[in-house]
Amino acid sequence: MRVPNHIGIIPDGNRRWAENKGFGREKGYVAGIDPGLVLFKLCQSVGVKEVTYYGFTVDNTKRPTEQREAFTEACINAVRILANEDAELLVIGNTKSPMFPEELLPYTTRRVFGKGGIRVNFLVNYSWKWDLDELKKSTSKSNNIANQIQSNDISRVDLIIRWGGRRRLSGFLPVQSIYSDFYVIDEYWPDFKPQHFYDALNWYNEQDITLGG
Amino acid sequence: MRVPNHIGIIPDGNRRWAENKGFGREKGYVAGIDPGLVLFKLCQSVGVKEVTYYGFTVDNTKRPTEQREAFTEACINAVRILANEDAELLVIGNTKSPMFPEELLPYTTRRVFGKGGIRVNFLVNYSWKWDLDELKKSTSKSNNIANQIQSNDISRVDLIIRWGGRRRLSGFLPVQSIYSDFYVIDEYWPDFKPQHFYDALNWYNEQDITLGG
Repeated sequence: MRVPNHIGIIPDGNRRWAENKGFGREKGYVAGIDPGLVLFKLCQSVGVKEVTYYGFTVDNTKRPTEQREAFTEACINAVRILANEDAELLVIGNTKSPMFPEELLPYTTRRVFGKGGIRVNFLVNYSWKWDLDELKKSTSKSNNIANQIQSNDISRVDLIIRWGGRRRLSGFLPVQSIYSDFYVIDEYWPDFKPQHFYDALNWYNEQDITLGG
Repeated sequence: MRVPNHIGIIPDGNRRWAENKGFGREKGYVAGIDPGLVLFKLCQSVGVKEVTYYGFTVDNTKRPTEQREAFTEACINAVRILANEDAELLVIGNTKSPMFPEELLPYTTRRVFGKGGIRVNFLVNYSWKWDLDELKKSTSKSNNIANQIQSNDISRVDLIIRWGGRRRLSGFLPVQSIYSDFYVIDEYWPDFKPQHFYDALNWYNEQDITLGG
């Protein structure tokens, strides 16, 4: 089986999940923390080399305060939990904005936790505009764009898995996603099941990868 | 019905279509010209304001010569056919490379044909790296990226329709595709049917558009 080197995770549908349960919309985020750890262990077990979680974006912070606080808290906890695993962890996003949680500042340069091994990237207060705007500072004459953006330490994504049924990238690492195969799961992220992951891997295994050639 | 303002078209599967018919792989491109005109007229009829066709990319030109010649010829003919319609036409791509067909140079600034109306963009010898590399020349302090790239005259894409079953963007206008809803049709582009277009519009009509909010 051809296992993707790098998987991108768009864990969408937390608010819709909470609404369906009769909870306040902001109650969905805490239910997304455990699935993130299960998914990490599945990636580790099949030999994935890098995984990127879409935490929250600069756009997301314009939502109602109670939602913003809830997803920020969930991201802080998720990163702390991953830091207890064997992983090479990087939190990336616009740290110059007050929306970036100071609890996560210590994780904004890549560090090895435990025995390391798998690279884990966590997008926090990320913005595709912030990511690409960095190109303006480049003095390189090469058009190797990937090396000259804010997220230059994140490699090309082979497979993106999005929960919650929406068929769009919503600003997730536009440069690294250029050639990504995109698999959508209709169920909401808090309803994550390991079978979703295996279904995505089986589907990816059948794709013809051409990288634009 | 909520009709998308701007539709992106990825007309994939020409070579696989030709192979399935027992033809040489390069024979598929000529069969993709008529569908392009039918689709244009459908867009016009439902009130779409802008449509972008993915002609060929800089990466594509590394394919065998007979394929390259065939898709270049098909693009030249498709643009000439569209120039007989009521449309505001722009061909965009790297004109400084010998792979850009000189027959299309007269179309590289937007021009009104017939009564104008719908905007039609045709990507020819396009490259996402070429598109984004333009940011390095920008002196603007704003991070309004869309205004500072080569394709700044192409607006945000609401709906991308890809034929040929692959679930990836393959470098299609990364900035304008950030929030695009992505609809995939398994049939090959030369097997285009108007029902594909209506299916995509019906699906788009049911999507919840948030633009990252």
